[in-house]
Amino acid sequence: MADAATTVAELKDVVRHFVEERAWQPFHAPKNLAMGLAVETAELMEHFLWVDGAASSELVKQPGKREPIADELADVFCYLLNLSMALDIDLSDALRTKMAKNALKYPAEKYRGKYTV
Amino acid sequence: MADAATTVAELKDVVRHFVEERAWQPFHAPKNLAMGLAVETAELMEHFLWVDGAASSELVKQPGKREPIADELADVFCYLLNLSMALDIDLSDALRTKMAKNALKYPAEKYRGKYTV
Amino acid sequence: MADAATTVAELKDVVRHFVEERAWQPFHAPKNLAMGLAVETAELMEHFLWVDGAASSELVKQPGKREPIADELADVFCYLLNLSMALDIDLSDALRTKMAKNALKYPAEKYRGKYTV
Amino acid sequence: MADAATTVAELKDVVRHFVEERAWQPFHAPKNLAMGLAVETAELMEHFLWVDGAASSELVKQPGKREPIADELADVFCYLLNLSMALDIDLSDALRTKMAKNALKYPAEKYRGKYTV
Repeated sequence: MADAATTVAELKDVVRHFVEERAWQPFHAPKNLAMGLAVETAELMEHFLWVDGAASSELVKQPGKREPIADELADVFCYLLNLSMALDIDLSDALRTKMAKNALKYPAEKYRGKYTV
Repeated sequence: MADAATTVAELKDVVRHFVEERAWQPFHAPKNLAMGLAVETAELMEHFLWVDGAASSELVKQPGKREPIADELADVFCYLLNLSMALDIDLSDALRTKMAKNALKYPAEKYRGKYTV
Repeated sequence: MADAATTVAELKDVVRHFVEERAWQPFHAPKNLAMGLAVETAELMEHFLWVDGAASSELVKQPGKREPIADELADVFCYLLNLSMALDIDLSDALRTKMAKNALKYPAEKYRGKYTV
Repeated sequence: MADAATTVAELKDVVRHFVEERAWQPFHAPKNLAMGLAVETAELMEHFLWVDGAASSELVKQPGKREPIADELADVFCYLLNLSMALDIDLSDALRTKMAKNALKYPAEKYRGKYTV
């Protein structure tokens, strides 16, 4: 699994290099990147539109479905990395900080097995 | 910068641990996670709704704005990590594979400085 | 049912009057209105995030749920009306034209009971 | 302008007839329709992704752009009508009720020319 050996900064570098080679930085206002992130997220969501929850778990196992879904996931990640670079926000820091807030907001013993109390 | 020293797998572990402590796995059908990703993306986008592109770059520098925006970025990342785990897709692999396809689709010399040709 | 006696133009007038009273037209670039439409759509979608399809049909019957959902539906409609005015597009014409295209794209006998063939 | 002579109920009838001819009602859980609404909204938004606000107003005047944008607007409206039928919510009532709430929330004299105070 490449995720085990790849830092977030390495993936930022892959994306930054791609953008710089094309001189696309002027397009990358946070407003535009947030819109692009939403567009790609909708394309990912579209794969699961007409199936129910259980079937959505099976879908990715179909030949011919795994690769397009992985591609959409990558597109979302690409915009997220670009946006974090445009905003100069460290994603690992932001995630850990927010998960610590979530842990206070959703105490484990109170929310076990349910999303609302 | 924590991104330089943090692997994607380490962040997956942070999120997985949080979900397991609350026994939230039954809610995490890919269909639901894709919807949640779209909901969080919209909350992030809302910060940039009424400003133009240039102002959206400045926004994150305002006191009182950086933290809420970083939190929304983290929420999006959290759903993306959860979704990649539910789908058993390696994010680093997926990103590199997709960027290689993008490099073929958008040759640098042809697309330099423009998004359409 | 007010829908039986209300034209789309009358609803456009309600929204136009509201916007003019506040002099909000300068904010109403199509780009912004499309983003706002997406933000409101996500707020509507959030009501159905953790329930399955069958439960989503029951949700609106719960006391305390019908009004917030109707409000979100109205917010989406409000942005759609604003966007159609900003673009000078007649919604009734656009809908009928598109449904005629859809009828050719999805022949009834071929698609009966299924979304893909 | 057809909007001046077309009631919302007439447009609901167009959409209902289309759905019934294809026996698509079983797919139309509110959860699915809300997702579909979000997917179509993103496709509409994509037209305005890389242009700024001012250019987004001009875009619809380009030959070859007006029809695709009108089609996306119609797709969004189609899902909104389907969702209002699935939820048994009157759109005209919902809009007027919500605009009355908005008028109290955003007093005209206080919000003239600005979105936040």
